[in-house]
Amino acid sequence: MRVNSKTFGPIKKKSSDQRSDRLSRSCLEQPIILQLQGLFFFFWTNEAVLLLESTSYLRSEEVVVLSLSWRTVWGGGSGFQKMDRQFWSGALEEEEVPAESGVYEDYYSGRGAAMNGHGPGKLVDPLEDPVPGLGTYEDFNTIDWVREKSKDRDRHREITKKSKQSKVALMHSVSDAFSGWLLMLLVGLMSGALAGGIDIAAHWLTDMKDGVCLIGFWFNHEHCCWKSNETTFQDRDSCPQWQSWGELITGTSTGPLAYIMSYLMYIFWALLFSFLAVALVRAFAPYACGSGIPEIKTILSGFIIRGYLGKWTLIVKTITLVLAVSSGLSLGKEGPLVHVACCCANILCHLFTKYRKNEAKRREVLSAAAAVGVSVAFGAPIGGVLFSLEEVSYYFPLKTLWRSFFAALVAAFTLRSINPFGNSRLVLFYVEFHAPWHLVELGPFVLLGIFGGLWGALFIKANIAWCKLRKTTRLGHYPVMEVLVVTALTAVVAYPNSYTRMSGAELISELFNDCSLLDSSQLCGYKQPTNTTAGVGNSLGDRPAGPGLYTALWQLALALIFKMLITVITFGMKVPSGLFIPSMAVGAIAGRLLGIAMEQLAYYNHDWLIFTGWCSPGADCITPGLYAMVGAAACLGGVTRMTVSLVVIMFELTGGLEYIVPLMAATMTSKWVADAFGREGIYEAHIRLNGYPFLEPKEEFECSSLAVDVMRPRRSDPALVVLTQEGMTVGEVEALVEGTRYSGFPVVVSAESQRLVGFILRRDLLISIDNARKRQEGIVSASKVVFSEHCPAQAPDAPPPLRLRGIMDLSPFTVTDHTPMDITVDIFRKLGLRQCLVTHNGRLLGIITKKDILKHMAQIANRDPDSILFN
Amino acid sequence: MRVNSKTFGPIKKKSSDQRSDRLSRSCLEQPIILQLQGLFFFFWTNEAVLLLESTSYLRSEEVVVLSLSWRTVWGGGSGFQKMDRQFWSGALEEEEVPAESGVYEDYYSGRGAAMNGHGPGKLVDPLEDPVPGLGTYEDFNTIDWVREKSKDRDRHREITKKSKQSKVALMHSVSDAFSGWLLMLLVGLMSGALAGGIDIAAHWLTDMKDGVCLIGFWFNHEHCCWKSNETTFQDRDSCPQWQSWGELITGTSTGPLAYIMSYLMYIFWALLFSFLAVALVRAFAPYACGSGIPEIKTILSGFIIRGYLGKWTLIVKTITLVLAVSSGLSLGKEGPLVHVACCCANILCHLFTKYRKNEAKRREVLSAAAAVGVSVAFGAPIGGVLFSLEEVSYYFPLKTLWRSFFAALVAAFTLRSINPFGNSRLVLFYVEFHAPWHLVELGPFVLLGIFGGLWGALFIKANIAWCKLRKTTRLGHYPVMEVLVVTALTAVVAYPNSYTRMSGAELISELFNDCSLLDSSQLCGYKQPTNTTAGVGNSLGDRPAGPGLYTALWQLALALIFKMLITVITFGMKVPSGLFIPSMAVGAIAGRLLGIAMEQLAYYNHDWLIFTGWCSPGADCITPGLYAMVGAAACLGGVTRMTVSLVVIMFELTGGLEYIVPLMAATMTSKWVADAFGREGIYEAHIRLNGYPFLEPKEEFECSSLAVDVMRPRRSDPALVVLTQEGMTVGEVEALVEGTRYSGFPVVVSAESQRLVGFILRRDLLISIDNARKRQEGIVSASKVVFSEHCPAQAPDAPPPLRLRGIMDLSPFTVTDHTPMDITVDIFRKLGLRQCLVTHNGRLLGIITKKDILKHMAQIANRDPDSILFN
Repeated sequence: MRVNSKTFGPIKKKSSDQRSDRLSRSCLEQPIILQLQGLFFFFWTNEAVLLLESTSYLRSEEVVVLSLSWRTVWGGGSGFQKMDRQFWSGALEEEEVPAESGVYEDYYSGRGAAMNGHGPGKLVDPLEDPVPGLGTYEDFNTIDWVREKSKDRDRHREITKKSKQSKVALMHSVSDAFSGWLLMLLVGLMSGALAGGIDIAAHWLTDMKDGVCLIGFWFNHEHCCWKSNETTFQDRDSCPQWQSWGELITGTSTGPLAYIMSYLMYIFWALLFSFLAVALVRAFAPYACGSGIPEIKTILSGFIIRGYLGKWTLIVKTITLVLAVSSGLSLGKEGPLVHVACCCANILCHLFTKYRKNEAKRREVLSAAAAVGVSVAFGAPIGGVLFSLEEVSYYFPLKTLWRSFFAALVAAFTLRSINPFGNSRLVLFYVEFHAPWHLVELGPFVLLGIFGGLWGALFIKANIAWCKLRKTTRLGHYPVMEVLVVTALTAVVAYPNSYTRMSGAELISELFNDCSLLDSSQLCGYKQPTNTTAGVGNSLGDRPAGPGLYTALWQLALALIFKMLITVITFGMKVPSGLFIPSMAVGAIAGRLLGIAMEQLAYYNHDWLIFTGWCSPGADCITPGLYAMVGAAACLGGVTRMTVSLVVIMFELTGGLEYIVPLMAATMTSKWVADAFGREGIYEAHIRLNGYPFLEPKEEFECSSLAVDVMRPRRSDPALVVLTQEGMTVGEVEALVEGTRYSGFPVVVSAESQRLVGFILRRDLLISIDNARKRQEGIVSASKVVFSEHCPAQAPDAPPPLRLRGIMDLSPFTVTDHTPMDITVDIFRKLGLRQCLVTHNGRLLGIITKKDILKHMAQIANRDPDSILFN
Repeated sequence: MRVNSKTFGPIKKKSSDQRSDRLSRSCLEQPIILQLQGLFFFFWTNEAVLLLESTSYLRSEEVVVLSLSWRTVWGGGSGFQKMDRQFWSGALEEEEVPAESGVYEDYYSGRGAAMNGHGPGKLVDPLEDPVPGLGTYEDFNTIDWVREKSKDRDRHREITKKSKQSKVALMHSVSDAFSGWLLMLLVGLMSGALAGGIDIAAHWLTDMKDGVCLIGFWFNHEHCCWKSNETTFQDRDSCPQWQSWGELITGTSTGPLAYIMSYLMYIFWALLFSFLAVALVRAFAPYACGSGIPEIKTILSGFIIRGYLGKWTLIVKTITLVLAVSSGLSLGKEGPLVHVACCCANILCHLFTKYRKNEAKRREVLSAAAAVGVSVAFGAPIGGVLFSLEEVSYYFPLKTLWRSFFAALVAAFTLRSINPFGNSRLVLFYVEFHAPWHLVELGPFVLLGIFGGLWGALFIKANIAWCKLRKTTRLGHYPVMEVLVVTALTAVVAYPNSYTRMSGAELISELFNDCSLLDSSQLCGYKQPTNTTAGVGNSLGDRPAGPGLYTALWQLALALIFKMLITVITFGMKVPSGLFIPSMAVGAIAGRLLGIAMEQLAYYNHDWLIFTGWCSPGADCITPGLYAMVGAAACLGGVTRMTVSLVVIMFELTGGLEYIVPLMAATMTSKWVADAFGREGIYEAHIRLNGYPFLEPKEEFECSSLAVDVMRPRRSDPALVVLTQEGMTVGEVEALVEGTRYSGFPVVVSAESQRLVGFILRRDLLISIDNARKRQEGIVSASKVVFSEHCPAQAPDAPPPLRLRGIMDLSPFTVTDHTPMDITVDIFRKLGLRQCLVTHNGRLLGIITKKDILKHMAQIANRDPDSILFN
């Protein structure tokens, strides 16, 4: 009845070892103190910041030491959370409650009651807390969707039943029904407010790299000059109240000295911001690094990572996101905003029992929060909902669709009323085009799609290779140093080129922008038409490129190369980093370049066949801004493999149905091209890299194997470990459980017949026996354990039997050994199973867990099956 | 081993009886000829139409006689299809292929091959046709989603495998992969073109009711006057080329005689159009009646209704839709357009093997087609996709989402290039508002939501009651007469009131419209401000209502009452009839009325607390058009219970994110209010009325019963009829099958052990035995039937055994008897099962079919379980 070797169950001890291994690899290694030393002097040289930062720095240092010691003892995040609790006592109720503390209700007994179909006979009221720990999950484990959903239905049934008895219960029932909407409202408000705060703070800090406002350092460049009297366009950017660092230090705004000083200050601020960001992440919330979307995808598919969406992560991620964005690194805030919104949702879930106690219900809220995140990131509520549906969510019932939409709208309106950009737009790069596009232009759009697809595929491969390097070599041991080096590199290279110096969102905004007659930007440096007849009035005919534009072109080309390279090593560092903005920037540059090339081509060759009929001299036929937008969509599509949601987000940015076709053409091409090099998007690639147990719902299972090929035990292994429904004693059961590492055991009628009765989880079994030994009289090792409905006859002097039918799952899922794996995988995906028993002609034969399936899939794809770490 | 009484399987004979019963009730009863007589004279008095219509009429008459005789013989649609084939030989390959003709491939053998894991040993190549009829479905049966999807995966696997062997196979594989996209393109093009044609034709015929263009009767009013020289606004509507019927007949455009003549001609045309519509439907395509959405929902959930999406239905529905819309009945073209798009998709599916041969794949295409239908109906591609996702589809993988979006876009652009309204908009009631709304206005918006919800709930109840009346009384025996009476009633009442005389879309367009200074419509009959200081320039301050507006108000009020009543009896008649436009019209009228009331309230009471701060004198603070739009959304939401898709459709009509919040507030309120009176939308109500086997994916199963309570046989019934895997002879099996009416039989190891081996479908079993008797040597009644892997030893002189393991489903789904029904229902929904076996401790206990579940649900809801007719 035993299986040797590595087997199917989640192996408790090992998995926890692996976990700490993984965490320490993936997020934090070396005592931060050593790395800090070289940078101390920065702190003491700048007084202005000291005031602000020193206190938090000092505390951060203490905490680092504390947390490191804790982490050494406990491994992973749990120790950290204990310390966290010391610091933040009296705060919101924690998500990171230790599993033993028993917040979950007794699912089994509740279900047992439902099964027997009578109220009074049931063991525990499903609305109250039963034996502590029963029906809960351990960290880094997958939830059982069927069980959670059933639990919620039981709860709902109970409330409905009670609501008929009294007024108070009725009120409770009504408030319970509306709690979902209230929660969505709160999530929308909180996320919108946070996003607005992040936008404003990032704007301010980004400008801080350039200079300071003399009338108040808390003003950003634009606000500073609003106060000024010069209100003409030219003067707006150079009002006397705003002084660049060079000007401030050297006293003159021109000359090499001022430039060098500005340059140095730029680098200094960049380093400072990124150092603060990485130090905060490292010290307070290791989970705050990265974009968060791969982990959120995994969590939404049912995985548990305690603390990943906790308040601590929220606070640190919000702060460090501002710092990281301001540091000028090639990263965006869009992915992290999704993480921030999910944290908000998770924290707010604690206000409502319905969501606090049910992992499946909570995931519905998190799905909606993902939509909220994108909604505030791009000002695109519909696109956000579709993003959540298409890209992130696993279980997305229609009810959630509607609620997500509501939350996304609330968030968008909260953000709009905060008005972070002062133009009543939700994003910096909102754009309105006026010229139509022509069918011929689909050619270059498809070219952009191909570029986007190629870049996407290449980027994923390069980034994953770099991340693997970071994991396996000594590079990963110095995360802080890595961030500082990359920041320094970015700052040094980026400053001289105005297109890399500006923030990603500003760059995209500039590239999307359509040139008007009065536009003074370099990108609009066309030669003014010499003959006065053409180009009069508002409509802008096509014009030859002037020297300003040529300068812009080679600067853009350099920026393109730089962005393409630096993003590969930036994404995956230990700071919050989104990928949307850098990808879009790369695509927008490429698109704008192609757009200008097309425009000039058309200007000098109106007589070419492809231009005749729609692009006559003097007509404004080609909009380079549209090319930039199409390119941005193509590159983002190549990297993330989004489709509908991407097009809808872009559509919401332009607000015209007109431009959907070019966007769609580019996105489709990009996806096809990128898929030819590998079907995984960047998020799936990172999920696989981290070994999370994620069963991709999009891909078909192609292989023709059967359940019997995947199940454990294998033919050569010993038989499956099972419990019998009668006849085993408490001592025997305990010995059997202790001797194995499986997370659950099938219960059969008898060892000979192997007919399946039910399935019991290791955790529930141990807790129940423990509980019975403590509280139930007469339970000793010799007591019989009974899983059957009726107690078998016993000798009169025997100790009372321990009846455990109540905690057994009486409806375990089974498939036959001949079931093709494609069907089995479908069942796992659609029902959200953790395990499934395999039978042959009614006899129990084996078990298939989610991990087995993932390992099997890895094997088919010629990957290492042991890369799947969790269950 | 027998069960008496009504039991779980679909009972072949009975279901076909029921079907003909149902069809004859639901669509056509009495010989049409009798009803025709009274109307003959209409035909002979009008020469102009005779030319056009007489030929088609005569043929229609012949066909009616033919079809009636056929229908008497065959019952339902099948006879009709045979006749259809006589008329339309050489047309596209038929969807309505008789089940026996064997278009389906041998799933079981293909799967058997996959199971054994070796290619050469398999019985049949999954790409070729095996034993005819194996694995096909009968009409009015539900498909097995798991089987169909598995079949498609096998096919895909086979093609992939072959593609590595030769260039040709590789090309085939590539073309196979892109066939989905090509199909979507074709569906989009065809549906867009048809929608454009319908719009143009309906526009023309609607104007025909008013008058005729002297320079060419094929011009509609607008086109006729385009040719005219008078191009000022006033003259445009009254150019000399366009003559109303009164003017043409009496020679004068004014006076009571001209009015009466116009009135009579209006009624005449209305009657003629509606008569033609109902006669065509009745004679050629009974399935073309109604909106089609309930049936499409059911078909998408896996039901088979042969001919429902055939080319004959397409042709007739397209023509009769134009006629029905033009007749002035209170119906819209939106629902039927979805049906038309689905017909297109279904017909085009025949061009591609992948979709022709697989019911599940075809349903993916149909889901996309539903999106296309709404996309062209409202010019809302994104809304269309969400409509399909939210309202219609059952199985909607993400791949389908993307393709649907593509198809919806193609269709929208096809329609736009046809430009049916001459304004480069896709719909008549596209609108752009410019004034913002204020938070206080949410009050009236919520009021509109309450109105919409109440009206929706009331409408559904009234309409269903009316439809039941039609079914059960003699009313239903005269469908043609009913249509004519309702048309006459509509025309008589509608003509005097200009708001009911105009078409629904025009009415909505007028109501949505914002008043500009130059607007001459009655609804904009405000008093011009007397003091010259206020209201100068483009901005329009608020003004007091003038006499024109007051006239409009009471006309609108009358129109509201009329529309509310007439729609109840119109929807469900035997003509194509959509519900969107009438519902929206009701809501728009109510909204406009409330909007004007609010506006006047604000004008006369600027000092009220609720108006202070945002509605000062002279400001344009309230937009009645917005109220109309919100009201339209609320009523449509109340009737259909759409949520996200509705808001997005409306958003695409206005093009401003701004107005989503009012729309959302109203839609949410409307849904909540309506749900309080019953959770079903109009489509679900009609599905239930028709007894289709539809397992609503949105609603939760609330009851706490167990699988054992629902399964057959019941405790008091005899045991389940099973086959044993060895030991039965061909004769015994045949006798057992003939003696029962179940659609499938479980196969067990032995009658004593009752351990489950597999499941075999009645149809497959009979076909295989029949086939074996004909083609396989030595198969006689005494031959053993063997389902096991290895043949048991036999006496040497015994006839050779008949091995049927290949056609047996070796992986039947099982649940335990203790499985709660909520989980079981979830499994049925998510996996699309037809039946599921129930076991207890590994022994077979019973079976649950989809019909059993639906009956159980009906019982819980205190409805008649026998209302579920199909399996």
